[in-house]
Amino acid sequence: MRKSVAICLVSGGLDSGVTAAMAAREYLPAFLHISYGQLTAERELKAFRDLADYFKVPPRLRMVVKIDYLKRIGGSSLTDEKMNLPAADPGRREIPSSYVPFRNANILSIAVAWAEVLGADKIFIGAMEEDSSGYPDCRQEFYEAFNRVVEIGTRPETRIKVETPIIHMSKAEVIGWGMENGVPLHLTWSCYRSSGPRACGLCESCALRLRGFRQAGFKDLIPYESEEDES
Amino acid sequence: MRKSVAICLVSGGLDSGVTAAMAAREYLPAFLHISYGQLTAERELKAFRDLADYFKVPPRLRMVVKIDYLKRIGGSSLTDEKMNLPAADPGRREIPSSYVPFRNANILSIAVAWAEVLGADKIFIGAMEEDSSGYPDCRQEFYEAFNRVVEIGTRPETRIKVETPIIHMSKAEVIGWGMENGVPLHLTWSCYRSSGPRACGLCESCALRLRGFRQAGFKDLIPYESEEDES
Repeated sequence: MRKSVAICLVSGGLDSGVTAAMAAREYLPAFLHISYGQLTAERELKAFRDLADYFKVPPRLRMVVKIDYLKRIGGSSLTDEKMNLPAADPGRREIPSSYVPFRNANILSIAVAWAEVLGADKIFIGAMEEDSSGYPDCRQEFYEAFNRVVEIGTRPETRIKVETPIIHMSKAEVIGWGMENGVPLHLTWSCYRSSGPRACGLCESCALRLRGFRQAGFKDLIPYESEEDES
Repeated sequence: MRKSVAICLVSGGLDSGVTAAMAAREYLPAFLHISYGQLTAERELKAFRDLADYFKVPPRLRMVVKIDYLKRIGGSSLTDEKMNLPAADPGRREIPSSYVPFRNANILSIAVAWAEVLGADKIFIGAMEEDSSGYPDCRQEFYEAFNRVVEIGTRPETRIKVETPIIHMSKAEVIGWGMENGVPLHLTWSCYRSSGPRACGLCESCALRLRGFRQAGFKDLIPYESEEDES
């Protein structure tokens, strides 16, 4: 039987890389990358391409969409060079300034349009609820509500569903699953600040990644500016 | 008391023009136009600008967003020159080829991101359920589900709600309301096929508009190619 197509939202980060690997076990993966003017856009795009090559995604099932409006709308330190990117702060309760307003709904809406035309039944996204930065659009509740919109807002014959296989996993569990299943995590990029060759090791995203590797008991093979301190 | 801001999705068509006029009675309107590669994009943009000037919308509250991905994704005769645009067919039950996959969710997601940054409480969209082409993303059910996503997926302190004031009105009622309230309907553009100076008068959108004017008992002041047949 021919595998059905699943769209994988691949930012180029660790979470989306592992999620895509999970999808590829059961589906023919179509890789979608949304570049929205984040500071490290070029490095993330390279990670996307490296992962797409690794998973042998054919050209017709790769799509890179560049949107300028989230950066123009602003309101996030992830897209606005004039705002300070927050450092890691595990005790913080409010939503950090790196939150991009309604980003995941924008990204998912693009994915659903493509899924409807491709005839894909699934959309995989590497959102994590507990072990994340506390963004409102990373909660399971959000995806349940979004799936209702997809059900109503597409042609009646479509059966598109957004899947969030790692939503209740910790970063260490995601890394552990990836390492044990041969996912090339060294090709992924998480740093919010640096476009390489070394990750900063200090921003929120680097801190979550490094702590995850430590907890999982594996070594992160991407280079860090502060390599000595992290080994 | 200062009026609060409402984002109005203004395509340049008749329905969005009347909806914006309704919003402007109570709110300070911010006009958002999404150009997604539809065949008559330039003419619709002109209608948007004419309406924004008419309603004296200041530059900081006008935003034009051009997105290329809905056209690249395809699957609609509204964006693909190689597909035939359907003629009007009141007896048809299936969804016409002019349906753009998940378009309104894409458009609304952009509006919500802007609303979150502007601090706007409302988003007005001129969707119509009964007297429309039968698109799945024009039904009240869709907007109720979308509002749940907005509630969950934005910062907890926001109170953004999508409003659909004309959703249960007929085209004739919308036109009647517009004419009786001095909305400059002659500045709007509905034709799917022609970018002017004359509307085709034959496509689905022209047919709905012309029938609405006839039923409402008003004359449509925009020029039509087949002017003699319609008077």
